[in-house]
Amino acid sequence: MLKFQAQDPNFESRVRESFARQQLMQTLGAALTLVAPGVVEIELPYQAGLTQQHGFLHAGVIASVLDSACGYAAFSLMPADAAVLSVEFKVNLLAPARGERLLARAEVKRAGRTVTVCTADAFAVEGGQSKVVATMLGTMMCVRGRDDLVG
Amino acid sequence: MLKFQAQDPNFESRVRESFARQQLMQTLGAALTLVAPGVVEIELPYQAGLTQQHGFLHAGVIASVLDSACGYAAFSLMPADAAVLSVEFKVNLLAPARGERLLARAEVKRAGRTVTVCTADAFAVEGGQSKVVATMLGTMMCVRGRDDLVG
Amino acid sequence: MLKFQAQDPNFESRVRESFARQQLMQTLGAALTLVAPGVVEIELPYQAGLTQQHGFLHAGVIASVLDSACGYAAFSLMPADAAVLSVEFKVNLLAPARGERLLARAEVKRAGRTVTVCTADAFAVEGGQSKVVATMLGTMMCVRGRDDLVG
Amino acid sequence: MLKFQAQDPNFESRVRESFARQQLMQTLGAALTLVAPGVVEIELPYQAGLTQQHGFLHAGVIASVLDSACGYAAFSLMPADAAVLSVEFKVNLLAPARGERLLARAEVKRAGRTVTVCTADAFAVEGGQSKVVATMLGTMMCVRGRDDLVG
Repeated sequence: MLKFQAQDPNFESRVRESFARQQLMQTLGAALTLVAPGVVEIELPYQAGLTQQHGFLHAGVIASVLDSACGYAAFSLMPADAAVLSVEFKVNLLAPARGERLLARAEVKRAGRTVTVCTADAFAVEGGQSKVVATMLGTMMCVRGRDDLVG
Repeated sequence: MLKFQAQDPNFESRVRESFARQQLMQTLGAALTLVAPGVVEIELPYQAGLTQQHGFLHAGVIASVLDSACGYAAFSLMPADAAVLSVEFKVNLLAPARGERLLARAEVKRAGRTVTVCTADAFAVEGGQSKVVATMLGTMMCVRGRDDLVG
Repeated sequence: MLKFQAQDPNFESRVRESFARQQLMQTLGAALTLVAPGVVEIELPYQAGLTQQHGFLHAGVIASVLDSACGYAAFSLMPADAAVLSVEFKVNLLAPARGERLLARAEVKRAGRTVTVCTADAFAVEGGQSKVVATMLGTMMCVRGRDDLVG
Repeated sequence: MLKFQAQDPNFESRVRESFARQQLMQTLGAALTLVAPGVVEIELPYQAGLTQQHGFLHAGVIASVLDSACGYAAFSLMPADAAVLSVEFKVNLLAPARGERLLARAEVKRAGRTVTVCTADAFAVEGGQSKVVATMLGTMMCVRGRDDLVG
C-alpha cells in the first residue's frame, strides 16, 4: 500500500531524533504523530500565542509545521548519512485556521537523488471534524558529506 | 522617492495596531522596525528556541516574519476599513540563517483593488554585516465588509 | 463521487467555448479531453517545435497546459457571467517530459467566491504507460462585471 | 557594476548556442537580446497565436520566456561542462500582457554549486513605454556528468 520504501531501515528513529532537535517545534508545541516511508504527520494544539491579528493560527506557524512535515517525509527516504535542507516551498492558505489543533500531513511526490518534491495539507481539527486549511508544495534537498549538517 | 502613496493617512498606526495583535510576533520576539507606504521591515533577534535541527533559524520562522512583512506592506496601501489576508506565498531559502538577528524587508510589487503582490527579502545580520538568507514572493488580499475580520 | 457541483448547468459548453478562444492552445496543438465540475484534462501531442535544449517538452509548454487546465477547472464552478484570470501558479518539474503526449489533469482544491485554488499534475504518456512529470499549485480568480473580460 | 562573474569565459556563446536549440523559443518567436554574467533578457513580439481567451498573451507564454531567461541567467554562471534544468518556478501575473512585445529580464539572486535561485520580471512594451506584467521566482539546477544532458 505504501508508495515508497525507505533505504535506511532506521529511518523512523533518524526522523524522530532530528525532529527532537528542532527547537522551534517544541516552542510551538508541535509533536510528530506519524512517521512512515515518505509520509510524515505533525500535530499542533491551538494556542493564542501562535495567532495572527484575527485570532487564527498565523500562516507562518502553518508553514512551519508543513515545512517540517515535508522535510521529514523527504528525509525518511534518504540514506543514513544524509541531511535534509528546505530549498523552497509555497503555501496556499485555504481557510482560517481555527479549532482545537492543526494536523499537517506531508507526502513525497517524487524522490530524487538530490531533490525531493513533497506535497502537504494542513487540517484544522475540532470536535472530531477536520477541514483542510492550507496546502504546501515544496522542494527538499539531500545534502551529504558536510560535517556542519547532520540529520 | 516612494513608489506608492497610502490612501489612508493613518496607515502607520493602523499597521502598528494590527501588528501588535499578532501574538505570534510577540512569541517569536519580532518587532516592527519600519512602516512606510508599501514598505515594511520586521526584525527578530536570534533565539535557540526558534531553530531547526542544525541550529539555524527554522524556515517557518523566516516565513513567518516575511509573511507578516508582506501582509503589512500590502495593508499600508489599503483603505482604512480593510482587513488583509495572505492568499499564498513562496519562499526560497538561500543560505543558513545564523547571526544576531533576522531583518525582513517587504515591498509591494503591484497593488490592486483586491489582490496585492509583494516581494520580501530576509537578511541575517551579524557584526554590522547583512547577508540575504531567504526571499519571498507572495499574494495578499484586501477584504472588506466582514465584521469578523478587522485590520 | 464528485467533490463539486457546478452552479451553472451550462458549465461544460462555457468551458469549451472559452478554451476554443485560447489561440495558444491551438498553436501548441492542445485539446480539451475532459470537463467535469472542478476537474479538467488537456492533452498535447509531443512536437519537436515545443522542446527545450535537450529535446524534452519545455517547462513553459507544460506550465501552459497546466495553467489552462487549472483555469478551466476553476471556471467550471464559477457563475455563468464570470471570467477567470490566473493570479499565480507554481510548477515543480519532476522528470523530463518525453513520450507520445502530455496529459494535464487539474482539480479544484478549494473554490471560494473570489479565489479558487487548484492542483494539477502533468503526465508523459507513452505506449499506454503514464508517468508524472510535473505538478502545479495555482490560484485562480473569479472576475465579474468587467466588459473587457468575458469567459 | 555586475554582481556576478562568470567562471567560464565563453559563457555568452554557450548560452546563445543552448538557446538556439530551444525549439519552443523559435515557435514562439522569442529572441535572446541580452546575455551578461547572471543576467539574461529575452524578447517576444506579440502574436495573436499566443493569446488566452481575452486576447492577452497566455500566462504560459509569459512563463516560458521567464523560465528560459531564468535558466540562462543561471547557466551563464555555471562551469563549461554543466547543463541547466528548471527545478521549479512560481509566476505572479500582475497585469494583462498586451502591447507590441514582451521583454523578460532575469537575474540570479543566489548562485550555489547545485542550486541557483533567480528572479525575473516580464514587461509589456508599447510605444516606448514598458509596464511590468508578471514576475517569477525560480530554482534552477546545475547538472554535470550526464551524457544525455548537454548545455
